Amino acid sequence: MAALADQLTALLGPSRVSVTETDLATHSTDKWFASNPPEVVVHAESAAEVSEVLRFANANRIPVTPQGSRVGYVGGCVPLQGGIALSVARMNKIKEITLEDGVAVIEPGVITGHLQNEVRKLGWFYPPDPASLKECSLGGNIATNAGGPRCLKYGVTRHYVLGLEAVLADGSIVKAGGRCHKNKTGFDLVGLMVGSEGMLGVVTEATLRLIPHPPMRAMLSAGFKSFAEAANAVQRILGSGFLPSALEIADKFTLRAAREYLGASVTPEGDAHLLVEIDGQPESVKGEIEQLAKLVTSLGSICLNKAMGDEACEAFWKLRREFSYSLRNTGLIKLNEDIVVPRGRLVDLVDFAEKLQSETGFPVACFGHAGDGNIHVNIMVPTMDDPAIRERAEAALDRLFHQVIAWNGAITGEHGIGVAKKRWWRDAVSPAAHETHLRLKAALDPNGILNPGKFLG
Amino acid sequence: MAALADQLTALLGPSRVSVTETDLATHSTDKWFASNPPEVVVHAESAAEVSEVLRFANANRIPVTPQGSRVGYVGGCVPLQGGIALSVARMNKIKEITLEDGVAVIEPGVITGHLQNEVRKLGWFYPPDPASLKECSLGGNIATNAGGPRCLKYGVTRHYVLGLEAVLADGSIVKAGGRCHKNKTGFDLVGLMVGSEGMLGVVTEATLRLIPHPPMRAMLSAGFKSFAEAANAVQRILGSGFLPSALEIADKFTLRAAREYLGASVTPEGDAHLLVEIDGQPESVKGEIEQLAKLVTSLGSICLNKAMGDEACEAFWKLRREFSYSLRNTGLIKLNEDIVVPRGRLVDLVDFAEKLQSETGFPVACFGHAGDGNIHVNIMVPTMDDPAIRERAEAALDRLFHQVIAWNGAITGEHGIGVAKKRWWRDAVSPAAHETHLRLKAALDPNGILNPGKFLG
Repeated sequence: MAALADQLTALLGPSRVSVTETDLATHSTDKWFASNPPEVVVHAESAAEVSEVLRFANANRIPVTPQGSRVGYVGGCVPLQGGIALSVARMNKIKEITLEDGVAVIEPGVITGHLQNEVRKLGWFYPPDPASLKECSLGGNIATNAGGPRCLKYGVTRHYVLGLEAVLADGSIVKAGGRCHKNKTGFDLVGLMVGSEGMLGVVTEATLRLIPHPPMRAMLSAGFKSFAEAANAVQRILGSGFLPSALEIADKFTLRAAREYLGASVTPEGDAHLLVEIDGQPESVKGEIEQLAKLVTSLGSICLNKAMGDEACEAFWKLRREFSYSLRNTGLIKLNEDIVVPRGRLVDLVDFAEKLQSETGFPVACFGHAGDGNIHVNIMVPTMDDPAIRERAEAALDRLFHQVIAWNGAITGEHGIGVAKKRWWRDAVSPAAHETHLRLKAALDPNGILNPGKFLG
Repeated sequence: MAALADQLTALLGPSRVSVTETDLATHSTDKWFASNPPEVVVHAESAAEVSEVLRFANANRIPVTPQGSRVGYVGGCVPLQGGIALSVARMNKIKEITLEDGVAVIEPGVITGHLQNEVRKLGWFYPPDPASLKECSLGGNIATNAGGPRCLKYGVTRHYVLGLEAVLADGSIVKAGGRCHKNKTGFDLVGLMVGSEGMLGVVTEATLRLIPHPPMRAMLSAGFKSFAEAANAVQRILGSGFLPSALEIADKFTLRAAREYLGASVTPEGDAHLLVEIDGQPESVKGEIEQLAKLVTSLGSICLNKAMGDEACEAFWKLRREFSYSLRNTGLIKLNEDIVVPRGRLVDLVDFAEKLQSETGFPVACFGHAGDGNIHVNIMVPTMDDPAIRERAEAALDRLFHQVIAWNGAITGEHGIGVAKKRWWRDAVSPAAHETHLRLKAALDPNGILNPGKFLG
């Protein structure tokens, strides 16, 4: 162990290498259950240093697990095979924001919310908005192609990455894409790197696309008697030529937990809840939110509240986030699975969840991004330490994922596969697609040093 | 030659294989200058047939050039090394349009405009709008990641491909992505295939994302005294929180040709022209187009026309398309290069074009998608048959591309590299990026049978 740290210290100097107990513990996990300590933590401060580490590790066949803010939900940055935890958290500079080109150039350790705020102050917009935006880093967003509620209108992280600098397993530094808003030069190396979960390279710089910030937004918060009515409202809103910036749904189990935690007075009535957000020019937004309110009322909402402007909308979003805390407040462990179904399957999904609940005895709460079918299904279990309960929980997850796959759904919409979903990876893709993954992995990381032990084994 | 055709006929039956003079001639070129006949044309009618052809060709090291509608602008589907021209034009069925899932499932030979119309009839929208949409096929759009004016707001083809079925060089049929609007399952195989110009696989089916069709649109057509004022208007519109669906610019050489061809009465006044299109809910669009008209007037436009609704807007687009015909009407050959510059470089680009014109004697006309910096630079030459003139033309292109690269621009925004831009490929990418392309190509097509002779050699 000392030998590895010594070798890395010789390469990079002592300020970059750590084997303190605290550092090893901190860098052994993310927000999921899996945990394994690295032998050494390297705090890289430049692409050149990342390149040095990888060249060395590749020559010596040492596992390297790239890490950013370590707030992922699937164990994606857990150093399962020990070796080097390669943190880029210190690379946290916004290098440039250039509005006339509509770009920001950032290092991977920049916190997503920090970039959003800096851009917002200038009247511009970086839309991807994962729930963890106050603590997650852009490098992690890129590694997982992070989403969020506003992806319905604005697209996921991939749609905002114009250019990347990434270091491959052999230490070579590749620049892909650039600072142009359109670019058809060669294969889509940027796209291949985005969402590759640290298995194909380490991103050391990104050029992100910025768009004009819509000056006004407004929201509706609507309660419905049944989930089917709320899901119908989703379809009817989209069918009326509206593309809201967000369309968020919650089911009765989520609402019940919220009533328990927050009180009935602030929790919307009914067995289903819908949030609709639109944005644009002030007068347009004022008119459109009225139109939408009429439409939603005509579709049977039993309570309806409106918010106009940033502050009022934030209050609605706060309530929405508290749904999640309400579930935690039950004292149960939330197995939060970010599955996706074709939008037409929303009602089937919630019916299935209800059946799963009654058959397994575990409460199941569904809420999330209804517009794109990306629903967070939360199976609530008392513990994961009791083997018998754990087994039943795993069986429930098996049923959920197999049903999602049978509907042509996706086992992950925004968190990635990591360790958490490795078990269903082979069911989720065809043998030829798996084989293609192996070929690409072998082409870019022939020794398999980058983030080993994850979904490709 | 007969032997190859016979072998393929034995595999596929006579109705799929052709060596007629007409077929060979038709399938030897696209809309660019390059031409080379294949030995055989195969008209595949299913993924299974495409797979049979590729398995056979791979085993026998026979070049295969995939083809759709053959209306590309860079010679991308010219069978430079003979062999098999593999046309998927007969695979032209729309298999499914399912609005509740927001998807269309298509075969690659479907004409882009046909899908758009079918979707539009149902009140929905497939946004990518390459200029050739009445004749280009979706498979070709996918192979080149086609764009168009509305990409500013709506993104390029890549943003609408949710799932693909593609056949790799060895005949294996890979399904990537699916029918979900969000999907983080594995690497982005869909993105890798989109824009790969027939060099990594042959797309046999695609699942495309549909969005609600905005019920109203409106446009402004504005003349300015100078290009700098029009480019400033582009920046100021975006800086005011508007993201128009299109922002198209044209320079004085384009306008002069239009006056010559169409007459001064219908051509906008001034030395620069700007088209602004917005879309959305009817009342919103009415209000916003007035706001934009005021803004554009305050920025010095010397003539301004408004269009409200589809029909009036189409008249503006028709005029815009006639700019292109006007250039052809000069009797000169239009070397149309779809370069991209960072948006802040628009004025520099047109200044450079003016200098190029005065130094080379070739007229240079610039028009295109100002919002994303994707400007079509047209160098107008009397002939490409006279070696001396051709050499001067090539030298002018060299200067253009090297300047674009020096500005961190892109040598192609929507047409691809193909044969036309092969010469500048190595200047446009770093050695490490080129090397990465070779590794990916070797991983998926180790024998190099797919579309050989293009930018990877």
